[in-house]
Amino acid sequence: MEISELQTTLRRTYYQRDAKRGGDATFRWMTEEVGELAKALRHGDHDELVHEFSDVLAWLASLANLTGVDLEEAAARYAHGCPKCGHAPCVCDFAR
Amino acid sequence: MEISELQTTLRRTYYQRDAKRGGDATFRWMTEEVGELAKALRHGDHDELVHEFSDVLAWLASLANLTGVDLEEAAARYAHGCPKCGHAPCVCDFAR
Repeated sequence: MEISELQTTLRRTYYQRDAKRGGDATFRWMTEEVGELAKALRHGDHDELVHEFSDVLAWLASLANLTGVDLEEAAARYAHGCPKCGHAPCVCDFAR
Repeated sequence: MEISELQTTLRRTYYQRDAKRGGDATFRWMTEEVGELAKALRHGDHDELVHEFSDVLAWLASLANLTGVDLEEAAARYAHGCPKCGHAPCVCDFAR
């Protein structure tokens, strides 16, 4: 699936609700899902883990839709390797 | 860009570092980026916002690589609308 397809589908699915709720509440929901991802990392099975990654992605896209961010543009920064050193594998000489 | 392409590129770029650092520290980094996203939402310009969405996406993919999650599989859950009600737009009758 293209990143843009996912973002478009999520716009079609949730934008009306997202806009009514607003950016801060949408950010809060996304953070709640990050917490659920933490829980799944701690003790979830693989299906639960996929489910939580799924939700974090979805809420990230909802937030991107609300704030006018094109996730393809965001992803493009990493399209050719590390945006800092330009290499894949990254050869940055600092802790990451 | 396909979601799988992004995940593969991030694997090629960072997996060695990610594996050395481990899942918990990678989760911590991702959460740090979520915080930077919050800051950019508060006062960043558009480019900063794109940058932070970019970093959250990248760290989410790093974490997916470390935990054996296929982000295409994760994204597929939202491919046809709301995974709960099955519709786009969502017609779920509860607060979201």
